[in-house]
Amino acid sequence: MAEEQNQQLEVAIQHLSDLLHSGQDETFKDSFEALHEYEMGQAYAGLPDHLRSVAWRLLDIELLAMAFDNLDSNDDETIALLLEMPPQKAVQVLRSMYADNEVDLLQQLSSRQLATYLSLMPKKEAEGVRNLIDYEEQTAGSLMSTEYMAVEEELLVGDVMQLVKRHANEAESISYVYVLDNQARLVGVISLRDLLTHPDKLRVSEITNPRVISVKAGDDQEDVAQIVADYNFVSIPVTDDDEHLLGVITVDDILDVIGEEAVEDYSGLAAVNVSQVDDSFWQSAIKRIPWLVALLILGMSTATLINHFDGLVQKASILAVFISLITGTAGNAGTQALALAVRRIAIGNTKTPVKTFLSEMLTGVVVGVVTGLAVFLIVTFWKHNMELGLAVGLAMMIAIMVANLAGYLIPVAMDRLGLDPAVASGPFITTLSDLTSVLIYFSVAQLFISHFIGK
Amino acid sequence: MAEEQNQQLEVAIQHLSDLLHSGQDETFKDSFEALHEYEMGQAYAGLPDHLRSVAWRLLDIELLAMAFDNLDSNDDETIALLLEMPPQKAVQVLRSMYADNEVDLLQQLSSRQLATYLSLMPKKEAEGVRNLIDYEEQTAGSLMSTEYMAVEEELLVGDVMQLVKRHANEAESISYVYVLDNQARLVGVISLRDLLTHPDKLRVSEITNPRVISVKAGDDQEDVAQIVADYNFVSIPVTDDDEHLLGVITVDDILDVIGEEAVEDYSGLAAVNVSQVDDSFWQSAIKRIPWLVALLILGMSTATLINHFDGLVQKASILAVFISLITGTAGNAGTQALALAVRRIAIGNTKTPVKTFLSEMLTGVVVGVVTGLAVFLIVTFWKHNMELGLAVGLAMMIAIMVANLAGYLIPVAMDRLGLDPAVASGPFITTLSDLTSVLIYFSVAQLFISHFIGK
Repeated sequence: MAEEQNQQLEVAIQHLSDLLHSGQDETFKDSFEALHEYEMGQAYAGLPDHLRSVAWRLLDIELLAMAFDNLDSNDDETIALLLEMPPQKAVQVLRSMYADNEVDLLQQLSSRQLATYLSLMPKKEAEGVRNLIDYEEQTAGSLMSTEYMAVEEELLVGDVMQLVKRHANEAESISYVYVLDNQARLVGVISLRDLLTHPDKLRVSEITNPRVISVKAGDDQEDVAQIVADYNFVSIPVTDDDEHLLGVITVDDILDVIGEEAVEDYSGLAAVNVSQVDDSFWQSAIKRIPWLVALLILGMSTATLINHFDGLVQKASILAVFISLITGTAGNAGTQALALAVRRIAIGNTKTPVKTFLSEMLTGVVVGVVTGLAVFLIVTFWKHNMELGLAVGLAMMIAIMVANLAGYLIPVAMDRLGLDPAVASGPFITTLSDLTSVLIYFSVAQLFISHFIGK
Repeated sequence: MAEEQNQQLEVAIQHLSDLLHSGQDETFKDSFEALHEYEMGQAYAGLPDHLRSVAWRLLDIELLAMAFDNLDSNDDETIALLLEMPPQKAVQVLRSMYADNEVDLLQQLSSRQLATYLSLMPKKEAEGVRNLIDYEEQTAGSLMSTEYMAVEEELLVGDVMQLVKRHANEAESISYVYVLDNQARLVGVISLRDLLTHPDKLRVSEITNPRVISVKAGDDQEDVAQIVADYNFVSIPVTDDDEHLLGVITVDDILDVIGEEAVEDYSGLAAVNVSQVDDSFWQSAIKRIPWLVALLILGMSTATLINHFDGLVQKASILAVFISLITGTAGNAGTQALALAVRRIAIGNTKTPVKTFLSEMLTGVVVGVVTGLAVFLIVTFWKHNMELGLAVGLAMMIAIMVANLAGYLIPVAMDRLGLDPAVASGPFITTLSDLTSVLIYFSVAQLFISHFIGK
């Protein structure tokens, strides 16, 4: 199905190119206007460069704004498309876009370009845009749009419906009308559903829900996404600390947030940016190599450590047999603890930090004891050597407990320090755990060696 | 902010409990009704058992249905709440719920319970429900709701507005009205926005968009989610293969899908179910151990292989030093390739399979050569032994290429076989790659050993 849509889009782009190429400007405009808004964006971006420079001359500002509103406003390819136009034209398009997308694009400009663009806007509008630009990334403020509908409580249902009808084409969502007091503070919300099902003569205060759920402009976008998903909202209002309404966030932006966050966490766990699946092999290699080489250098410390125990290996080469088993299993246990810790941070923990810590500690102990016991049994029976089994099993047990604890503590500590815990990638944890596992393994083996050697 | 909401909810539940406890039934009903729908669900589920059995006797069916509509309909705790009521009451609640949630809950019943419940519904309704139950999980059909608005094209805008007003409280989304031909096939869509901004006397055919984007009931839910996210829809219609309208999927269900899929992929990469962050330490350990032990047994094959090369290690104990470096680095490369492949499958590939394969192969070659070269240099200078450096570097290069290819091919093959590629977990790939890496390492070392031994 998704592929079918892609194919249709390819055909549409080809058709539009042909029309432009053969000079059928009016038919091009009509065909473009008949597209879905998302397709307008894709089609505009998909036109060959020389035809796109014709397209922006032909198309109405409103249509261009729709196209740009439906491209990824955080993508540097989108801003590149905008920069193809002269600044005057680009600013016209930006001003017709939804404020959240406009600001996303402006944020990617150099400060010099930004100054130029803002100088081409009416002063008051430029100020408003500057305020929005100042919101930190990944906060509610950076997601919100300022095209919303708000009224005071004294109106009648019919009045508000008139207002909705007038603003229906500008507002990003028409599902809710917000109610403000005389100091512009958010005090309630009216749903379009209720407006439609109540008589025109009724005072809106009768259908206003005073328990309006809102977020603060500085709130983390993940928290906002969680509330919208829980409450099944299609939009949520954003206020400042004094409850003044600043804007609304619509569910389409929430979909993007959830997608982004998931991709970030996933990328962290794999030490590769999975959002760039379309890279050429060369770009792809260039991006993977630094991680691998950094981890390789960290891994060299493990090699150095094993080298330090060379005397031990020379005495009992059997020790080499279990190196990868212990590092591998401890690494797996560490990855499990890491993934759960990152996830717990992402969705908000319901237990206290102390309880979570104790619970994770105990889990590590149980997992370590059971797995250690399994290894003890396997090695004892395989090699008919209980002392060796004991050494490997004990080392495995301690290595798992340590890896488990590290997998839990590192992301939690990073979160406390205000860093993104997803950066503590799975491979980083496993490479680090290799080092501690080897240290534990050879230390334990050293204690036991007189017992199992020569057997 | 999310925490603030949770605290408010706790307070609300306590308040409701107190009211029930002290017999203030009417105040309880009013307070419950004043909650947000999501909070109704949470509050109902959060009441102590003995008070909940009073609550369902007091509350209107409509309010109970709202509460259940806002609980996770795929959770077995939700169905348990429903089973607390006598079947007659439970069926009344189910019938007042949105069809998608109703069906999710019914699917969790035993076939005997299901038969009882269906026998308590009007025959035609029971048939409709049975049809919905038959849609496979994770398809569009399993997500859709049958409460939508549809009209024929001959009507006027005013007529359709009347219809919207009448059905506003039943339909799950009122943003779109669908247009059907005389054989109930989907031929267009009208947005509420357009209805509001056009005169009542206009024929709806004037504002009907004939290019309606729909999905088929059998389509994969991930594909549906992608379309909704791309097009910024708040709902999307579902049809059968002959374009007959069957239902609609609303954006709140899409939010859940995106969350679920991300959690599944993430869980796969870590070999632990990260959706269960609230497990007790005991449950948590019980769930992690089977994976670890299974991987441990797979890891034993690597140990056996190293054991097989014991003679080699005895001759050159230096070989033990680089085992974890090679297995670790190859494992990391394999995990990167795996994560990208799983992600590419999830979001739909834009290149042909052959191109992707070639691109991934070439990436593996570049990554392998660069990393192998780095290792060659490090080992040569560290050990002042170029032959050893050559052996380790060459082994590293081949091991990375193989791990990279396996990380790419395994999920792709699983997807072709109709299995979920996320099950090919990161730890599984790394453990498997340990085996091939060790085999490659010792085989290469064997070729070179006469050159570097005794140096």
